[in-house]
Amino acid sequence: MDDCIFCSIIQKKISANIIYEDRDLVVIEDIKPVAKVHYLIIPTAHYANLHEMSAFNASTLGLILKKIPEIADSLGLKNGYRLVVNQGEDAGQTVQHFHIHLLGGQKMNFSV
Amino acid sequence: MDDCIFCSIIQKKISANIIYEDRDLVVIEDIKPVAKVHYLIIPTAHYANLHEMSAFNASTLGLILKKIPEIADSLGLKNGYRLVVNQGEDAGQTVQHFHIHLLGGQKMNFSV
Repeated sequence: MDDCIFCSIIQKKISANIIYEDRDLVVIEDIKPVAKVHYLIIPTAHYANLHEMSAFNASTLGLILKKIPEIADSLGLKNGYRLVVNQGEDAGQTVQHFHIHLLGGQKMNFSV
Repeated sequence: MDDCIFCSIIQKKISANIIYEDRDLVVIEDIKPVAKVHYLIIPTAHYANLHEMSAFNASTLGLILKKIPEIADSLGLKNGYRLVVNQGEDAGQTVQHFHIHLLGGQKMNFSV
């Protein structure tokens, strides 16, 4: 998608601090962190949200979920982490390219 | 697991407000909601956390992710929703049976 910031990052048209990448996903630092550690796990394929991703590419979604524990381990998140998917307006989804927030590095409260 | 509260709910040894169930998952209301809508999506198979679930049963994990959009639709969450996985101590994981929080029914802030 030409006008998608995450696609532009994946295609290296826009620079970002990429800390991990493979064929299926890219991990970058969130530019507006809400926790001490705040990364975004972004599938390389463009799907606007979980509805599209799960309908058209559930196998890659499963693969990504399977990789998250090793990514978290490699980032040293041995005391745990939080995964967040914000879907749609109520959740404040800002980029219309499905992504998973990976939060950690501190004790976290649970509120909305 | 005999001492697991979610296994006891799945086996109907403890009552809970089950709003959806099939072979792979059960959806119940969270007894300590942090949002107007707060459900727990619980795989019927016992895995302590994402690390165990993704290592031993990634295919079921993928299936569950694929079902979430239709579950959210059936709950009327048309303005969006948030999915949260709390893994380990830093995230405040309280029940050692992997589960996904489904939050919605209101505008949500994003903080930890």
